Amino acid sequence: MQQFRRDPILGRWIIVQYDREQGPQNYQSQAIQKQNNQKVCPFCVGHEDKTPDEIYIDRTPQVNSEGEAWSLRVIENKFPALRTEGIPSRQGLGIYDQINGVGAHEVIIETANHDKDISDLTIEEVKRIILAYKHRCIELKQDKRLEYVLIFKNHGKGAGASLEHAHSQLIALPIVPKKVKEAMLGAQKYYEYKERCVFCDIIQQEIESKERIVLENDLFIAFAPFASSSPFETWIIPKKHSSHFHDISEQSIGSAADMLREVLIRLKKVLTDPPFNFIINTAPIQHDEELNFYHWHIEIVPKLTRAAGFEWGTGFYINPSPPEKTAKWLRDVRI
Amino acid sequence: MQQFRRDPILGRWIIVQYDREQGPQNYQSQAIQKQNNQKVCPFCVGHEDKTPDEIYIDRTPQVNSEGEAWSLRVIENKFPALRTEGIPSRQGLGIYDQINGVGAHEVIIETANHDKDISDLTIEEVKRIILAYKHRCIELKQDKRLEYVLIFKNHGKGAGASLEHAHSQLIALPIVPKKVKEAMLGAQKYYEYKERCVFCDIIQQEIESKERIVLENDLFIAFAPFASSSPFETWIIPKKHSSHFHDISEQSIGSAADMLREVLIRLKKVLTDPPFNFIINTAPIQHDEELNFYHWHIEIVPKLTRAAGFEWGTGFYINPSPPEKTAKWLRDVRI
Repeated sequence: MQQFRRDPILGRWIIVQYDREQGPQNYQSQAIQKQNNQKVCPFCVGHEDKTPDEIYIDRTPQVNSEGEAWSLRVIENKFPALRTEGIPSRQGLGIYDQINGVGAHEVIIETANHDKDISDLTIEEVKRIILAYKHRCIELKQDKRLEYVLIFKNHGKGAGASLEHAHSQLIALPIVPKKVKEAMLGAQKYYEYKERCVFCDIIQQEIESKERIVLENDLFIAFAPFASSSPFETWIIPKKHSSHFHDISEQSIGSAADMLREVLIRLKKVLTDPPFNFIINTAPIQHDEELNFYHWHIEIVPKLTRAAGFEWGTGFYINPSPPEKTAKWLRDVRI
Repeated sequence: MQQFRRDPILGRWIIVQYDREQGPQNYQSQAIQKQNNQKVCPFCVGHEDKTPDEIYIDRTPQVNSEGEAWSLRVIENKFPALRTEGIPSRQGLGIYDQINGVGAHEVIIETANHDKDISDLTIEEVKRIILAYKHRCIELKQDKRLEYVLIFKNHGKGAGASLEHAHSQLIALPIVPKKVKEAMLGAQKYYEYKERCVFCDIIQQEIESKERIVLENDLFIAFAPFASSSPFETWIIPKKHSSHFHDISEQSIGSAADMLREVLIRLKKVLTDPPFNFIINTAPIQHDEELNFYHWHIEIVPKLTRAAGFEWGTGFYINPSPPEKTAKWLRDVRI
C-alpha cells in the first residue's frame, strides 16, 4: 500500500511508501568522526585571527570548565553567498530579471570546543545559541533592505557542512523567498477559511492523537509531521501562538534549548549520528506585528534519502518511513 | 559580486556566485566505473525472468551488432512507488488529507548492452528510447485516473540510481504535482500579460544573444538557462511551440535524439561522467488540446553541488558557476 499525504501548509503531496518501509537499521550512517585538527580549525580558540571579526560574542566565563575566552562567536562568513554593501536594485535583461546580491551571511560558532556538537552541550550552552540567533535577527531587522532572515544548520558532510567544528549559519535576504511566501500564503488561506491558525490546529491534533509526538514539555512539542518529506523529519514548535522567532521569551528559550538538545540526542542515538539540516521557519522580519496565521517552528531534517529526478521534476517527495513509526522510534529510544 | 536571477517560469530566485566561481576542474567526479556484473544484472539479456513482464518492447534486430533479442524494454518497476490497482479516493484525517496511492511506475531499459549509456548509443538507438517514452505517454493518457506523467532518468549513484544498467523511469500520478502547477501558472501569467509563450521568448532571446547556447540544430536548441539552479544545468527545447511531449513528430524525435546524445557526450567529456538527472517537462496529459502558454522541454541537471539547509529553507539555490561560462565550456569542448 502507498499513500499520498498533503502538506497542510505548502499544499504539496508526499508519498508514504509502506511496501518497502525503512527503519533505523536501513539508515545507519558511519558516525561522524571528528578529526582532532584544532591546529588548523579556524573556529577554534586561539585562531580568531583566521576569521573575520566577530559581530556578536558570548563571553560567559568558564562555560565548559576549560576556561575558554568565549563560549560562542558570530562572524561574517569568510566566503559569503551575499555581501552587505550596496542597495538592492532590480534590473531587466530582455525578458530576464536580476537584482544585485545584497544581504548578509553570518556563521554562528556554537561552542569553543572543537569536539562537541549541540547534543553534547549543556542546556545552558544551547540556550546561548538560541539567544545569539535571537539577537542577530533583532539587529538585522533594523536594516530595512532586508526582508527575510533564515537561520540554518548543516551538520555533517552529507548535509553540506564544510567545516566540522559545530556551527550554524544565517543568511539575510532582500527578497522574501518563494518557499516562505508559499508557506505564508498556505497558512493565510487556512486562516481565512477557518479563522484559526493551521499550526495551532496541528499542535492540538498531534497532542490529542499522540502517535506522531516525540517529546512534549510545558511550552513546546516535538513531532513528526503528518506529511514529512523525509524519514525522521521532526518539528519543534511552541504551543503558544507566535509568528516571529525573534519574539521568543527568555523562558521559552530555555524550554526550546532543552527540547532541541534532546531531539538531537535521540536522533543521534537512533540513527548513529546522521547528517542533518535544521532551519528556523519564521515570518518575514519587516512585518513587525504578530501575524495571526503564521507560527514559527524549527524543522529538523536528517539527510537519509537522496532527492533524484522524480522529486526534482514534481516537487513530490517519496518517504519510505511512516512518520508514526519514526516518532515512536525517537520516543522509545533509551538515552 | 553576487547576483540574484529570477527564474522566469517558476518565479524563484537563484544566487549566481561570482566570488567563488567554480569551473569544471572543481567538479571532476570519479568516472562511473561499471562493474561487469551481467551475471546478476536483472536488466541484461537472458535475465528477463528477473523482472516483471514487459509493457513495451523494441525488437529491432541486431541493433548493436551483438544480436540481442531486443534493443529496449519497458517494464513495471519491481519496487514501485505507486501501483496501478484501485481508484484514487480522497479522505480527511482531522485536519489532514490523504489519497490512496494509485499510479504507475515503469522502468525503461534503454539498451540491452550493460556497458553502454545513452552517450555511447547511436542516434538510431537514442531515437528508440524517445519513441518508447512517447508510446508510454500515449497509452497512459487513456487511463483517466492519471493526470500527469513524469519521465526521468537518474544516472549514477550520486543522482539516485540504484542499478547501473542504463535505464530511465516513468511515474504516472493521479494529481498534477505542485511544481508542474506552478510552472503552468507562471507561464500562463506571462501569456496573459504578453500574449506570447514565455518559452518561445526565451528561445528567441537565447538564439539572438548566443552566450548561453550549447547546441543548435534545425528543430531544437540546447542552452544553459539564465537562472540555472545548478552548475551545468542544460535544457533541450523544440524551437517550434508545442505543449505536449507526446505530440513529438518522427522528424523531431530524430533531431531530439541527436541533440540529447551530444549534450550528454559533452557533459561526460567536460565533467568526467558526472552523475545527473534529466526530466521531461510536459503539460498534464488529460489537457488534450495544445496549450498556447506551455512548451515541453528536457531539463538535464548534473549533480555537482549539494542542496543544504539554506536551499531547503528558502527554495533559493546558490549556483557558483555562471551559466554563460558553463555553456561556453560545453560548446568549446572537443568531442
